Amino acid sequence: VSRKGVEGPALDTLLVDLARIQSSRERANRLFDWLIHPVPAQSFFREMWEKKPALIRRHNPEYYKGLFSTTEIDRILREDDVQFGVNLDVTSYTNGQRETHNPPGRALPFAVWDFYKRGCSLRILNPQSFSSTVWNVLSILQERFGSMAGANVYLTPPGTQGFAPHYDDIEAFVIQLEGKKHWRVYNPRSEDEVLPVLSSPNFSQSEIGKPILEVVLEAGDLLYFPRGFIHQGDCLPDDHSLHITISSYQKNSWGDLLHKLVPAALEMAMEEDVEFRKGLPLDYLTYMGVQNSDKEDPRRAQFTEHLLGLMKKLTSYAPVDAAVDQKAKEFLHDCLPPVHTAEEKACSVQGAPSRWEGGQAWEVKAHIKAQTKIRLIRDGIARLCSEGDVVFLHHTVDNSRVYHKEEPKCFEINPEHTDGVEFLIRSSPKFVSVGSLPCDTIEDKLSLAELLFEKGLVQTSEALLFS
Amino acid sequence: VSRKGVEGPALDTLLVDLARIQSSRERANRLFDWLIHPVPAQSFFREMWEKKPALIRRHNPEYYKGLFSTTEIDRILREDDVQFGVNLDVTSYTNGQRETHNPPGRALPFAVWDFYKRGCSLRILNPQSFSSTVWNVLSILQERFGSMAGANVYLTPPGTQGFAPHYDDIEAFVIQLEGKKHWRVYNPRSEDEVLPVLSSPNFSQSEIGKPILEVVLEAGDLLYFPRGFIHQGDCLPDDHSLHITISSYQKNSWGDLLHKLVPAALEMAMEEDVEFRKGLPLDYLTYMGVQNSDKEDPRRAQFTEHLLGLMKKLTSYAPVDAAVDQKAKEFLHDCLPPVHTAEEKACSVQGAPSRWEGGQAWEVKAHIKAQTKIRLIRDGIARLCSEGDVVFLHHTVDNSRVYHKEEPKCFEINPEHTDGVEFLIRSSPKFVSVGSLPCDTIEDKLSLAELLFEKGLVQTSEALLFS
Amino acid sequence: VSRKGVEGPALDTLLVDLARIQSSRERANRLFDWLIHPVPAQSFFREMWEKKPALIRRHNPEYYKGLFSTTEIDRILREDDVQFGVNLDVTSYTNGQRETHNPPGRALPFAVWDFYKRGCSLRILNPQSFSSTVWNVLSILQERFGSMAGANVYLTPPGTQGFAPHYDDIEAFVIQLEGKKHWRVYNPRSEDEVLPVLSSPNFSQSEIGKPILEVVLEAGDLLYFPRGFIHQGDCLPDDHSLHITISSYQKNSWGDLLHKLVPAALEMAMEEDVEFRKGLPLDYLTYMGVQNSDKEDPRRAQFTEHLLGLMKKLTSYAPVDAAVDQKAKEFLHDCLPPVHTAEEKACSVQGAPSRWEGGQAWEVKAHIKAQTKIRLIRDGIARLCSEGDVVFLHHTVDNSRVYHKEEPKCFEINPEHTDGVEFLIRSSPKFVSVGSLPCDTIEDKLSLAELLFEKGLVQTSEALLFS
Amino acid sequence: VSRKGVEGPALDTLLVDLARIQSSRERANRLFDWLIHPVPAQSFFREMWEKKPALIRRHNPEYYKGLFSTTEIDRILREDDVQFGVNLDVTSYTNGQRETHNPPGRALPFAVWDFYKRGCSLRILNPQSFSSTVWNVLSILQERFGSMAGANVYLTPPGTQGFAPHYDDIEAFVIQLEGKKHWRVYNPRSEDEVLPVLSSPNFSQSEIGKPILEVVLEAGDLLYFPRGFIHQGDCLPDDHSLHITISSYQKNSWGDLLHKLVPAALEMAMEEDVEFRKGLPLDYLTYMGVQNSDKEDPRRAQFTEHLLGLMKKLTSYAPVDAAVDQKAKEFLHDCLPPVHTAEEKACSVQGAPSRWEGGQAWEVKAHIKAQTKIRLIRDGIARLCSEGDVVFLHHTVDNSRVYHKEEPKCFEINPEHTDGVEFLIRSSPKFVSVGSLPCDTIEDKLSLAELLFEKGLVQTSEALLFS
Repeated sequence: VSRKGVEGPALDTLLVDLARIQSSRERANRLFDWLIHPVPAQSFFREMWEKKPALIRRHNPEYYKGLFSTTEIDRILREDDVQFGVNLDVTSYTNGQRETHNPPGRALPFAVWDFYKRGCSLRILNPQSFSSTVWNVLSILQERFGSMAGANVYLTPPGTQGFAPHYDDIEAFVIQLEGKKHWRVYNPRSEDEVLPVLSSPNFSQSEIGKPILEVVLEAGDLLYFPRGFIHQGDCLPDDHSLHITISSYQKNSWGDLLHKLVPAALEMAMEEDVEFRKGLPLDYLTYMGVQNSDKEDPRRAQFTEHLLGLMKKLTSYAPVDAAVDQKAKEFLHDCLPPVHTAEEKACSVQGAPSRWEGGQAWEVKAHIKAQTKIRLIRDGIARLCSEGDVVFLHHTVDNSRVYHKEEPKCFEINPEHTDGVEFLIRSSPKFVSVGSLPCDTIEDKLSLAELLFEKGLVQTSEALLFS
Repeated sequence: VSRKGVEGPALDTLLVDLARIQSSRERANRLFDWLIHPVPAQSFFREMWEKKPALIRRHNPEYYKGLFSTTEIDRILREDDVQFGVNLDVTSYTNGQRETHNPPGRALPFAVWDFYKRGCSLRILNPQSFSSTVWNVLSILQERFGSMAGANVYLTPPGTQGFAPHYDDIEAFVIQLEGKKHWRVYNPRSEDEVLPVLSSPNFSQSEIGKPILEVVLEAGDLLYFPRGFIHQGDCLPDDHSLHITISSYQKNSWGDLLHKLVPAALEMAMEEDVEFRKGLPLDYLTYMGVQNSDKEDPRRAQFTEHLLGLMKKLTSYAPVDAAVDQKAKEFLHDCLPPVHTAEEKACSVQGAPSRWEGGQAWEVKAHIKAQTKIRLIRDGIARLCSEGDVVFLHHTVDNSRVYHKEEPKCFEINPEHTDGVEFLIRSSPKFVSVGSLPCDTIEDKLSLAELLFEKGLVQTSEALLFS
Repeated sequence: VSRKGVEGPALDTLLVDLARIQSSRERANRLFDWLIHPVPAQSFFREMWEKKPALIRRHNPEYYKGLFSTTEIDRILREDDVQFGVNLDVTSYTNGQRETHNPPGRALPFAVWDFYKRGCSLRILNPQSFSSTVWNVLSILQERFGSMAGANVYLTPPGTQGFAPHYDDIEAFVIQLEGKKHWRVYNPRSEDEVLPVLSSPNFSQSEIGKPILEVVLEAGDLLYFPRGFIHQGDCLPDDHSLHITISSYQKNSWGDLLHKLVPAALEMAMEEDVEFRKGLPLDYLTYMGVQNSDKEDPRRAQFTEHLLGLMKKLTSYAPVDAAVDQKAKEFLHDCLPPVHTAEEKACSVQGAPSRWEGGQAWEVKAHIKAQTKIRLIRDGIARLCSEGDVVFLHHTVDNSRVYHKEEPKCFEINPEHTDGVEFLIRSSPKFVSVGSLPCDTIEDKLSLAELLFEKGLVQTSEALLFS
Repeated sequence: VSRKGVEGPALDTLLVDLARIQSSRERANRLFDWLIHPVPAQSFFREMWEKKPALIRRHNPEYYKGLFSTTEIDRILREDDVQFGVNLDVTSYTNGQRETHNPPGRALPFAVWDFYKRGCSLRILNPQSFSSTVWNVLSILQERFGSMAGANVYLTPPGTQGFAPHYDDIEAFVIQLEGKKHWRVYNPRSEDEVLPVLSSPNFSQSEIGKPILEVVLEAGDLLYFPRGFIHQGDCLPDDHSLHITISSYQKNSWGDLLHKLVPAALEMAMEEDVEFRKGLPLDYLTYMGVQNSDKEDPRRAQFTEHLLGLMKKLTSYAPVDAAVDQKAKEFLHDCLPPVHTAEEKACSVQGAPSRWEGGQAWEVKAHIKAQTKIRLIRDGIARLCSEGDVVFLHHTVDNSRVYHKEEPKCFEINPEHTDGVEFLIRSSPKFVSVGSLPCDTIEDKLSLAELLFEKGLVQTSEALLFS
């Protein structure tokens, strides 16, 4: 894509700048722009996304600096409880043989670096649990994708390869952080493997044909490829490699949405339309079925026509928005919780000055008033969904950095608060005064604001007074 | 429907006559004709079936004689292991209160008739397990419906009612066997309860409106009503009532077939059509979902149109015959096993003369030859279905008279036999010579015939020779 | 044991005679005496039972006639639903190789006799489900053993062997019914295999040493051997063999009773004796445990002594009778239900004249009066056990002929009836008048008698009047 | 016990001093001595432990300083992921009514201090997960008890009570950290509640009688009471209270050990002693059992005597050391992992200098030699147990600070290493040279030392050289 070195802001500076942006959606756009700079997002999504690999060369080994490093792995091994097989995999790929070498128990530097020295690759499975920067970056990017953003980190010793050729079920952004890696990318092997639903097994070299892209990725470079594109990377003899792969769009296809929509449509059709409840023809088993599939019976066409007619009619009963909400709820459960800036902390329950001091609890009452201005702490952090007659607010703020460690989180919204919540969601990221919430009484407005403040879902425009 | 007494053959004579009919499908038609005589089946299915109640008055208390009787209940209680709660329910409906009075353990005449004397109704839950005639009748009728035919028997003391008003999820044929019963039938209460998917709870008298049909059913009369029609029956002060309700078409609607078809279609579409695997729009969560349902955003229409377009396109991938086979397999599992006539026994494995005699086993080898003529023992007794590359023959002959006591039964058909089996199924009920089976070698023809004979699926035109 | 031919009553005559004996316990003794005639039971139990094999030769092929026959197998295959693998096993033992040949599905004569002709042995797994005589014999004998009496039937073609050498976990009475069989019996291979807890795997000929008994069993002969004695039987070239093996005393050892007693004793000791609740010594882990087992530390002996002292003390808390009741309840669940004689039927609920006749139920009220004489229908048919404060009567009358097809059966006995039930159990098999039952009021006496009559647990001395 | 103010070392100084003690067992003794100072441990365990409450007054509010504080709660709420209901309970006891007020989700200071202000008590359920000091103290003390040492922290607002009177199933050391609390302690209500197996439900004031001890505990004071002693504490109007309760000896009684021993003894007896496998008397059900318990039958005594004789004989088969090992394995699973001192880190795998630096892994090879001196990192950290023929080393080093978050940890010890491991365990806490390990070859000695070093089970006397 580009042959010329590019400059950009350092990641730490960028993240500070981004924190000043009101809209977390806009923030996500800007961070993604930086990721694929200098390719404009619009052309990226039009020409490459889900279509073909893209290589961005920067000749600037510092471009992604601060995102993650081997030094940080060393720190994490020392300070955190990293478990082999859970947080870290030790792998090798030698003579066409892919192996995993995880011992049981905790991964200490002594054992890990010994594996590395002996030519094993290391894969950190969820660096966002250990690195605040990775957590922050992914928690911003997930809003860009509207789909979970995950990451793995790969450290490979010089002259080795850690994994067999294979394809994944996610869109992959390979970010070279240190050293170099020789990559080969191959087209999907057939139409059926274009944008596949599941990852592939390991392939042998003879199964994958010729690469369509062969490149030595250097620190600062980016390689993107869609799900279904086979890939393998190995280190040059003289240089190790560290890269992080950011992934998204796992099970996020139109078909995945239809998996929610279609059964719901059928259930609704059966409830609402007697045509679906009418009995099948008395004798249909005598002319339908595989056993009769080459029979020339006019009733076959008639039966099929009626059946497919009903199937088409299902669209009239398809609860599209409710199905989207099912996807949305899963997404909210998948989401990383937000990383709060100092300012956000100061203006939210996270930073409430409530404290123990001198034998007493202080400042436990937040003075929220009609003129207090509030907004959701992030655009996409919460969503109103109804189940039967009850309205629930699903949200991400109590999620864990560890994938699905917490159950999906939601709470019921009382009828007098529903419009107020909807108003807040629509107004995001604008601040609105509590008094402007469309609730019937000032008491309702205040109680809603207090509830959302206490749950950590809203921040105020200025730090509250407490007593 | 009719006000005039009608004559017909006695049931035992009829069943003997029916046994002479080659085609079990034709046999089923004739038995059903007798059931609803003098209404022609064609007009019954056109005008009443799934539409409205039908009353057939016969002024002939003998019409259904031999089908079942209270004397037979007495015999069954004495001879068979009838368990309260499993095979027999003791119920009452007094002052709007419906109660069940089953004690634990075996139902002996002493306890059962005591309950009856004290005003309780008796419901025999599966008379086909105890009465060979009911078994025979239902096993014939199931082929008329292409759907399981079940039955319950109800004995009600004079001046009492055993059940609260309710509707069922099956087509019901109420056959009055002894005494009289006062019936009231009510329209479905709303469009949603027309041909309902599930049975109703018990209703109070105030919930059901005015009856559309009120009648005193006498022995020999028939009352039909479709699922969804509320009904209640009570005895006149001076006469007990015995009736059997024959039922069918439970979960046998177009929608039930779609329950098989639609998920299979979606799976196929995801495999074969990349349009279904393509990712959802990046920002769809921001304008779709219940929370956004009143937004005026042109993307909503566009999104919905594309989604519903794909949903319509599902019909192109709908494996109609395979879905029918799924229904067919469930039906075969639901089926009663066939009741063999003496002639069928003589010409099938059931009546093979193999025996122990004088300290030895005799006649264990069946002489099946190329000129031996065979056919399926019943038209609909078996069905070829494929799973992946393997073909299975599903069948009913090893089913039990007790509902689902046996697992679904099937066995693999080797490739060299597949065409032969298909040929036999298509030829049914005509006899064909073993030599005419479309297998490659005479050995294959003979081995197939022997296999199906041994499994009890075919009968020969004449009793075989054994040695 | 005996070389001389012996005479005895034919089984059918004997069973009729036995039915006249009041006490079912006495009846059991008499049937067992007949089984091992002419060996006196006392000497059998003293010298052979659980000690060594015993052979009783009778030179009277008719002695066991009527118990079971191959002709009856043929009838059963024809009339009953015999399932391969459930009710019948097809086996062979050729060239040291033991195989099972069960196809799926129902066992019809055609297939079964074909297997037999081809040299396979047949094992009927629960002949008591199909043969009323076997049911009757076993249901009488179980009271002799105080432990479940089971049976298998084995039919072996001439010149073949159906099973590999092995030992069982039950006391075995091999009753030769037809033809001849060559048997070899071997001592247990070691002390550890004397009266073993579990059956052995199949042995090879080289593992079992020399037989201690080698004999050709002929119809009318009996061979007994205790659990742990290895055995194998094969047919002579010219004669088939049919034998039935009656078994008992599976898991009926002192140790099996201790399995009930010891945990209960420990639970009681912990509740009642603070010595058991006191904490272990602070440092016991430093000198006890396998790791310290060869340490010379005086605390080891002291600790062990105290611990074993407490263990001995457990006997003071051992609820012996309650533990026996646990065994008894399992036995009652294992029991076959009683086979009623015509007289027993006439005098019990089984034969109550309650019936349907002429459109009405008749004779549903049993006239039990103070002077009516009743007794348990069998001595050991019921047992009072308490759980907490509630007393239950466990019984066998609702058991099935199929092993454990029914759940254990019991019902609560109200306090006002407890003494009455106990009195009835102790009086058995004597008849006592209802008026003599030790209940407070005549109403209680009558209601208890009615309850037990209705449950089928008691019979009257004379057929009751009904109205 | 004491009325005079006492002085002792500050906890932080003490912990530094303790770290210099070689033997962790000795370290545990010293820390426990400090805990109950000035009462000598010997007299405490002789006179109070499991016997009666003990009060130690110090008039020195600083005595336990540094162990835990409300300020630390505030920090933990701010920095750690404290979940309501999992890590923290909000409770109240008002007008005899005990209530829990946990909302769902994370416990932030704002909500927690608000509850406190409104009069609710806070209970931190596992302070060792959040406080390194508590973790350190408990991990040392557990070796004193040979049983898990747990802790809860309770913060109570002035003038309130958080819990109803009750007793626990553990030995409790109530350490007053801040403020004052009015305690009332009551005798067990009956012999059966002395050293009880389970905790009690909440009692009403009328159920518990008069206190045997009533005292206002002040910061620096200690109150001990055994399991079974009912207790309740409430705050004076003017002062809050913070205390930590250290607990031990849950399910650690002689009876708990018998629960392991007795079933194993019975299993062994059945295997080894034919007396246990012999059949029960034929007729025992007729004279034994609750139903026969007042029968005067000499066989009752004889049966009981034989049965209890066998029960006593079980002691001959009791595998005492194997049963202790079962308890030991459970204890090792319950244990907190050790807290390493800087020196321990330097001399163990925890502090191995292996690291990533300058694009390479450094110092991954530990130079263990014959003269290298090693020892277990703690006395009781590991235990050899055998299962069948295989020997496993169970250990605590990979346990989590969160109770049972990790599975029990062990690994197999090869035969050539077994004696070496046993030698190391016995030598603990003395250092021994690798060359002195009783293995056959120097390679075995070195490989064992390397294995245990890598697993984190041993430390060296001096920091190793690495390359």
